[in-house]
Amino acid sequence: MTKIKPSLPKGTRDFLPQQVARRKYIFNTIRNVFEKYDFVEIETPAFERIETLTGKYGEEGDRLLFKILNSGDFLSKASAENLASKNSAALLKEIAEKGLRYDLTVPLARYVVQHQSELVFPFKRYHVGPVWRADKPQKGRYQEFFQFDADVIGSDSLLNDIELTMILLEVYQRLGMDVSIKMNNRKLLEALAIYAGCPDKLMEITVSIDKLDKIGQEGVNQELQNLSLSMEQISNINEILNCRDLTSLSTIFINNAVGQKGIEELNYIFSKIQNAQVSFDITLARGLTYYTGTIWEVLANNVVMGSITGGGRYDNLTEMFGGQNMSGVGISFGIERIYDVMEELNLFPNDISKGVDILFVPREEHLMDFVFEQVSKLRVANISCEIYTGHPKKKFNYAEAKQIGYFVEVGDDEKSSGIFRVKNMNTREEEKLSITEITTKFMK
Amino acid sequence: MTKIKPSLPKGTRDFLPQQVARRKYIFNTIRNVFEKYDFVEIETPAFERIETLTGKYGEEGDRLLFKILNSGDFLSKASAENLASKNSAALLKEIAEKGLRYDLTVPLARYVVQHQSELVFPFKRYHVGPVWRADKPQKGRYQEFFQFDADVIGSDSLLNDIELTMILLEVYQRLGMDVSIKMNNRKLLEALAIYAGCPDKLMEITVSIDKLDKIGQEGVNQELQNLSLSMEQISNINEILNCRDLTSLSTIFINNAVGQKGIEELNYIFSKIQNAQVSFDITLARGLTYYTGTIWEVLANNVVMGSITGGGRYDNLTEMFGGQNMSGVGISFGIERIYDVMEELNLFPNDISKGVDILFVPREEHLMDFVFEQVSKLRVANISCEIYTGHPKKKFNYAEAKQIGYFVEVGDDEKSSGIFRVKNMNTREEEKLSITEITTKFMK
Repeated sequence: MTKIKPSLPKGTRDFLPQQVARRKYIFNTIRNVFEKYDFVEIETPAFERIETLTGKYGEEGDRLLFKILNSGDFLSKASAENLASKNSAALLKEIAEKGLRYDLTVPLARYVVQHQSELVFPFKRYHVGPVWRADKPQKGRYQEFFQFDADVIGSDSLLNDIELTMILLEVYQRLGMDVSIKMNNRKLLEALAIYAGCPDKLMEITVSIDKLDKIGQEGVNQELQNLSLSMEQISNINEILNCRDLTSLSTIFINNAVGQKGIEELNYIFSKIQNAQVSFDITLARGLTYYTGTIWEVLANNVVMGSITGGGRYDNLTEMFGGQNMSGVGISFGIERIYDVMEELNLFPNDISKGVDILFVPREEHLMDFVFEQVSKLRVANISCEIYTGHPKKKFNYAEAKQIGYFVEVGDDEKSSGIFRVKNMNTREEEKLSITEITTKFMK
Repeated sequence: MTKIKPSLPKGTRDFLPQQVARRKYIFNTIRNVFEKYDFVEIETPAFERIETLTGKYGEEGDRLLFKILNSGDFLSKASAENLASKNSAALLKEIAEKGLRYDLTVPLARYVVQHQSELVFPFKRYHVGPVWRADKPQKGRYQEFFQFDADVIGSDSLLNDIELTMILLEVYQRLGMDVSIKMNNRKLLEALAIYAGCPDKLMEITVSIDKLDKIGQEGVNQELQNLSLSMEQISNINEILNCRDLTSLSTIFINNAVGQKGIEELNYIFSKIQNAQVSFDITLARGLTYYTGTIWEVLANNVVMGSITGGGRYDNLTEMFGGQNMSGVGISFGIERIYDVMEELNLFPNDISKGVDILFVPREEHLMDFVFEQVSKLRVANISCEIYTGHPKKKFNYAEAKQIGYFVEVGDDEKSSGIFRVKNMNTREEEKLSITEITTKFMK
């Protein structure tokens, strides 16, 4: 076996125990809130048939899909022509039938259609797991990263939009994060395009407005000009974008049916929420083409970071897999960003990676049997404890790194007296206790 | 967008909500026991550099690795010669730099060497996740399946072997599974080969003995004959394999140092365990080449199924990545088999996929606001409840499928009186309660 230097593919990460503990804290916090609202968890495989994935994420997305080489003699079915011309794109179809999932949304659409008869609707599901994109790795952007998605499929009731907003509030409250939840409705962007007299350019306008944060109003106007919009049209769009509240927007959209519908939907949602963290923002656009109603974006306050959660309502997600049109609404948590914000603001509780309650350190090998007896008694009482078997010089280091609560060294004195010096690793205080007293002290 | 029939790559699975709940029950049960013993969790990426994986699992293993095609114009660096000759094996190296992990053991070895300075030793870690093998799919064998591994790296103390045995007992006790834990020591197989006068054939003999369950003693003897062992040598091996206890084995191995060492190790472990579920079995061999001490295999009683957990002690796992020799010991749980046994024996608790406590069903649309108010009051008290927004005809079906505890329909009567008929979905009994009484009833 040749020795090789251990390293990882670019854009991927190992997680150290403390990081795993912190990530689990985030996952479990979100999970618990969704379960309170009766969402159930599903899982899908890491890879899908390539036809399931291609054509769903645009040209750029197709390029970023990781493809899995067919097993065995994969060239046997390849055409000589594509090999000779080194045509990677054409050869791809002949040698790779599977791809790693790119998000959790397309797998959801496939899952719902495929398992339709086994599910109950409205299908309220959450799904957490890694997704893979062959993006150029950079700070905060990985080729393997995690998504936590929740969707309600098969109900057009705005109650779901309200509950997802409440879930966002509760998740971030439980995580101790101060956030701003911005909401809009795609119908208002549709109304905007109608108002400006260019309903045919809805998608392009939406994509431009989505960049407002990055390129500013000047930049957006420049893009609108490039779409051949007149100065008057651009001025009309700006008039709308500067609207801060639904009441004044309602005046502008007085004769605009789709605009009135969007305002009505948002007003209904806000009437049930009434929380200062949630606000209307007409400039919120979201890039995804398939949204048709409510859209959300969550920003963390007191820290420079992009959107940490986004979502929206859509009408025909399952259509691509031949499913009947089922209205759906969903949100997606950006786990790596939430992690980074929590780390920067020091929001992780200290006891997340707390080790066992007590570490027993036998001073000499012959004391192992005695120590094992003591520890066995504690374990019967379900007290978490451990016997140290590492290098004697590293014992404190070990106890500290593993955030162990109490430290007990055992020598011949302890063995003959049956009394142990139990050291609190935080306060450094010591108590002298028998094993019965230790049991009483630590039993939950 | 072309519509395609939703389906999965062969050998992969979706998991329905109830299956996910049951799988989580298994994972969390195992997890909790390991955490009681101060094991910490790690994670590694789904794919590794191909050099990390190849050559670690034998020729067969290399063939079963899923390779990921390089991104972009992957043929640009491919040699014309390999393309022209359709040499899949040679071309592979030029177009695929990454592979999906095949198990959690090689990633562990890489991880320990790569992060050596960030870890404390003994490093007691567990790791749970999917692994991928391009095996021919068949009943119970998948191309994506899950492993739950736990290892202690950097300690040769037998205390770890004892504790892992105790962990096995506790895990299966908590899962409610009746199991037999068989133990042996590789040193005894070494002693056996010495006793039979063919220490150079240790590995081949071990591999043959490992098949005893499948091919019987006759079959094993045939294989030993094929290894050119004499009848006397085979008879000596049979003499050992028929030994049921360590005492008689000790007499046979009286002058065999490595045999005595193996017996001593097992005797020490058994002196600390003393549980009828744990027994010595000289015929337990385990196929993996790198084991050097204790080996385990767990079988489920009252059901036909192969080994559900296996493990052993090894001396030089990290060597392949240039790490110093660190003794280690570990066990690996076969999650899909454990799942199948628990399903067959009906061992999953009924309340695993229990939904929310109460489902509220508004009889008409205009009652939604009133129902929402009631539910909001309950949620403030952290009572899990849900408002039904699906098809009226499917309401009971929904409540039953999601294992919801109580069912409350709300009509105009309920709205005016403020008294609700709260129906227990198990007993079908009804209670008439105000929202305050409901709060009291369900508050934990």
